[in-house]
Amino acid sequence: MRNIKAIIEYDGTNYHGFQKQVNLPTIQDTLESCLMRVLKEDVKVQGAGRTDAGTHALGQVINFKTSRDIPVNKIPLALNSLLPKDIVVKATEEMSLDFHAQYDSTGKHYVYKIYNARIPSVFHHKYTYFFPMELNEELLRMGCLEFIGTHNFKGFSASGASVKTFERTIYSLELQRDGALWEIHVKGNGFLYNMVRIIVGTLLEIAQGKREISSIKEILRTQDRTLAGKTVPAHGLYLQEVYYA
Amino acid sequence: MRNIKAIIEYDGTNYHGFQKQVNLPTIQDTLESCLMRVLKEDVKVQGAGRTDAGTHALGQVINFKTSRDIPVNKIPLALNSLLPKDIVVKATEEMSLDFHAQYDSTGKHYVYKIYNARIPSVFHHKYTYFFPMELNEELLRMGCLEFIGTHNFKGFSASGASVKTFERTIYSLELQRDGALWEIHVKGNGFLYNMVRIIVGTLLEIAQGKREISSIKEILRTQDRTLAGKTVPAHGLYLQEVYYA
Repeated sequence: MRNIKAIIEYDGTNYHGFQKQVNLPTIQDTLESCLMRVLKEDVKVQGAGRTDAGTHALGQVINFKTSRDIPVNKIPLALNSLLPKDIVVKATEEMSLDFHAQYDSTGKHYVYKIYNARIPSVFHHKYTYFFPMELNEELLRMGCLEFIGTHNFKGFSASGASVKTFERTIYSLELQRDGALWEIHVKGNGFLYNMVRIIVGTLLEIAQGKREISSIKEILRTQDRTLAGKTVPAHGLYLQEVYYA
Repeated sequence: MRNIKAIIEYDGTNYHGFQKQVNLPTIQDTLESCLMRVLKEDVKVQGAGRTDAGTHALGQVINFKTSRDIPVNKIPLALNSLLPKDIVVKATEEMSLDFHAQYDSTGKHYVYKIYNARIPSVFHHKYTYFFPMELNEELLRMGCLEFIGTHNFKGFSASGASVKTFERTIYSLELQRDGALWEIHVKGNGFLYNMVRIIVGTLLEIAQGKREISSIKEILRTQDRTLAGKTVPAHGLYLQEVYYA
């Protein structure tokens, strides 16, 4: 048996998220059915993490096991010729048999993209969150700093997911801006359900002057989701990279 | 009667080009039906130029006449609220009654976008021409220079269109490169049918080392289309700007 790691890019627009669902197209489904055509055997794909419906990935990581002896560097081309144009295998690598894309991950890098202009752009509407209200860049940058470090992020997560602990560490959270395109980059050791989208929704309220920066500390302390901002839409979110030790 | 000029951006993926066609969705159609809903009268849209099926626009220009006294600065928002998300009105301006988007145009700026990498990108496949073969940047830049000036471009045009003359002037033709993204920018006083796409197809053969730079002069001299390169796909082409005196 061999264990293959692959880095995947996808446009999430036409998928109901990463994880397999009955009768709905998902990234995992699509990868598994193409892998079965290439390898002529049943294949189970393990992702580093789920992404929601509409969320994109520049560097999702998966692993799968196969008994076939196909050279690992031939897999991207073989798969890409079968995959729809909105999913691409960027690279593959053979790993030891115990490598697990989810459990071995030590952190992730997400990007949330906002298009801040009065008039929307036709080339951005599926790939950024169109936000026409005026934003104060300095306030947004100051808000970002409040999240960095190890905190209980329950107040910045959606209920529903079963997790052992709500404690997560954010290594960095920063704005990269190019004109109307605002990218919020966040790197951390792990993320709760909807955590990035609620953090961004809270930051947007701060950047509009509608919310005090001090409210972030208050939400981290009280762990009260109702005090935090809105969950911004999934289509602005990208899983950029998954880290391994 | 009033005469309104508008600057339009569109994603051409889902349209059969700019110009109205029976039973096929086009940009002109879609604009006219939304304008009729806003203005409650028949409206005829005049474009600065046709774009082919799949071709995009960042700055197409149109004009239309109306008897309504809607403030000109209210038109973008009113139209954008009705238009599909792949067409946007960026700006409007009231002109003298004799302004004509096509006849008064003194030139155009087109961009052709190429994604040059071994692995395609899911975010580029509808918006750039994926070209995995190695390209020589220096040869491409040298080839560009051969087109600049006033020439008979019949050898770089598709047959079919009825034009009085094949003489056109190219003011500039240059590569702007950002990693895998190659943009060929061309500005000129006018363009024949498929002219930009055939010029780019010819330049790509030069950049692959498959064609001599001197062949450009030969095609301009002989006006023989069969000597020029392939017509590259429409989905890499953008009408960036229309010039007026």
